[in-house]
Amino acid sequence: METYYIQTKDIQNLIIGASFLGTGGGGDPYIGGLMLKRELQNNSKKIEIISKVNTINQNSFVIGSAMMGAPIVMIEKIPNSSETKKALEAYSNFTGNKIDYITPLEMGGVNSTIPLITSAKTGIPVIDGDGMGRAFPELQMTTFYFYGIQPSPVVIFDEKGNISIVKGINGYWSEKIARTITVRYGGSAYIALYGTNIKTYFNSAILGTLTLALEIGQSINDMRLDDVLDKLKAIILFKGKVIDVNRKLDKGFSKGNVTIQGLENNNILKIDFQNEFLLATINNDIIASVPDLITVLDLFTFKPITTDRIKYGQKVIVVGIPSNNKLRSPNALKYIGPRAFGYNTDFIPLEQKVKKIAN
Amino acid sequence: METYYIQTKDIQNLIIGASFLGTGGGGDPYIGGLMLKRELQNNSKKIEIISKVNTINQNSFVIGSAMMGAPIVMIEKIPNSSETKKALEAYSNFTGNKIDYITPLEMGGVNSTIPLITSAKTGIPVIDGDGMGRAFPELQMTTFYFYGIQPSPVVIFDEKGNISIVKGINGYWSEKIARTITVRYGGSAYIALYGTNIKTYFNSAILGTLTLALEIGQSINDMRLDDVLDKLKAIILFKGKVIDVNRKLDKGFSKGNVTIQGLENNNILKIDFQNEFLLATINNDIIASVPDLITVLDLFTFKPITTDRIKYGQKVIVVGIPSNNKLRSPNALKYIGPRAFGYNTDFIPLEQKVKKIAN
Repeated sequence: METYYIQTKDIQNLIIGASFLGTGGGGDPYIGGLMLKRELQNNSKKIEIISKVNTINQNSFVIGSAMMGAPIVMIEKIPNSSETKKALEAYSNFTGNKIDYITPLEMGGVNSTIPLITSAKTGIPVIDGDGMGRAFPELQMTTFYFYGIQPSPVVIFDEKGNISIVKGINGYWSEKIARTITVRYGGSAYIALYGTNIKTYFNSAILGTLTLALEIGQSINDMRLDDVLDKLKAIILFKGKVIDVNRKLDKGFSKGNVTIQGLENNNILKIDFQNEFLLATINNDIIASVPDLITVLDLFTFKPITTDRIKYGQKVIVVGIPSNNKLRSPNALKYIGPRAFGYNTDFIPLEQKVKKIAN
Repeated sequence: METYYIQTKDIQNLIIGASFLGTGGGGDPYIGGLMLKRELQNNSKKIEIISKVNTINQNSFVIGSAMMGAPIVMIEKIPNSSETKKALEAYSNFTGNKIDYITPLEMGGVNSTIPLITSAKTGIPVIDGDGMGRAFPELQMTTFYFYGIQPSPVVIFDEKGNISIVKGINGYWSEKIARTITVRYGGSAYIALYGTNIKTYFNSAILGTLTLALEIGQSINDMRLDDVLDKLKAIILFKGKVIDVNRKLDKGFSKGNVTIQGLENNNILKIDFQNEFLLATINNDIIASVPDLITVLDLFTFKPITTDRIKYGQKVIVVGIPSNNKLRSPNALKYIGPRAFGYNTDFIPLEQKVKKIAN
């Protein structure tokens, strides 16, 4: 598939698949799905997904389109789609760049659909790829950044019409300043960032993730979890019942942890999260950690559960998925390894850890 | 005087006079003085102050240059002068406007000197005027804004090199967003804002305030307080000893109040402040309020005391000064009258109130 036009029937697959890759973060899939459905019903422009490199002019300019903010705020403050377009326009006005392609920054329930909504509003095609291959909580946590592309300028737009443009001295500062603006706006914002030429983009991005999300979503909706596990070389880490959830909103992030008791034994799985699930331990032994993906599914429907929706009593399957090699390089691990999130442990690939356990 | 070049001998007069008009805010005069002295000693460009309208091309573009943040932070984080220039350059790059003139935003110990330092770094002349005729705590509290000029875009620069550009939907939002960025930067920032053509500027500004500050400073330094009072139609409201000061740093502002006991009687004068002195009561009866100026002077030296330097035991003279008519219009009072600062009272001009009291 070189070019594909998103249709209404794809929405449910996309948001479920993207949420699966979103490891608990990336926004609420139902909000993302509703927004996208509205666009497809509203005589908007066709949403073109482009996968192949050789169809693209090498001088083209690509820009990331996303929402920023704690997912839990997005649930209470449903986005007005036209604002994603305005963030792009502000970027163009500021930099003078004509925007040829849009890319998702991450895979997740909202941030996989936002670029499609922007496309529906502007007619600009979306590239089948992103900068994380999953979801992460901060702007500098992208393969784009690991390959030397700065997030700045970041355009930060809100539904009231406020525009802020940030050029941080590095990715951390761009993130910190953009985050504080987002909190001041009311907790969520529309952003445009990581503008670059298409050649640099293809070198740094994790490709094929939108179509991967569609495929995963189709399998999940068909209740074919084994197909997904095979496709992703994923491993079931645990099956259990949620017995405790701690969650707080801290500086624009949803932070906390969840405790799950085994269904078939007395083992305890605990997962720490910061928007996304970051670190899983079984009986205090680390079994999976960032950048590898930790995804929590409903035991009966296999639907992914976000960190904001997980709650006491849910019966769940916890899945570990090896991350893309672009996330596992020593340079990448400086930004997205366990230590980058404050955990005093090195990254050990999931497939090495899991050999030791049996559940 | 149509054009004047600032010299080292002017510094002490300027900072004392500007602090007098700064009503306790506008930054620490000693920091401002040190920064300006360094520029004049460092082979910088001449600092030209321009007073007369008819010498100026009507198509010229003027921009405000200032520091933002709680004055108390500036004391601990002494500015690097070259950053004021970089804020201006960022503004030019963003808007495409060539900058012909610089204006102070307010009169105060630091923010009267910042435009002069920017001038020394760039060679761009400074206009003898400002947008407050005093100091105020927020960006939208300027005569520029009351006359329809937006503060946005506001360029907010820090000493690390971070650049943020804010285009708020109105002055309040520009202020709120810029303030939150300043706090994130570490508490102080260099800003460029209120860009406009010179004709609009002269229509809206309070003119002659830099030379007025020089004149007031000269009189104070010569211990001729009566000359200052005559010049400004100012009134001595109170003489007393500071018996209590409450002060806290709140969202980037220095807020609190000071209690002063009469030297010659048992009356109590209390002044509320938010960076600047805002409201004075004698025995709970309001005697002066914003936008009129309330200035606290040392009883023996007549030097103005900032809200950050005032402390228990100081013997002081409290002076009330009628504000410029541009600050007293019904439209202006919406933004800078007592109610704009949360006081449940209408503005009554100082000269009407003072008839009633005798101290």
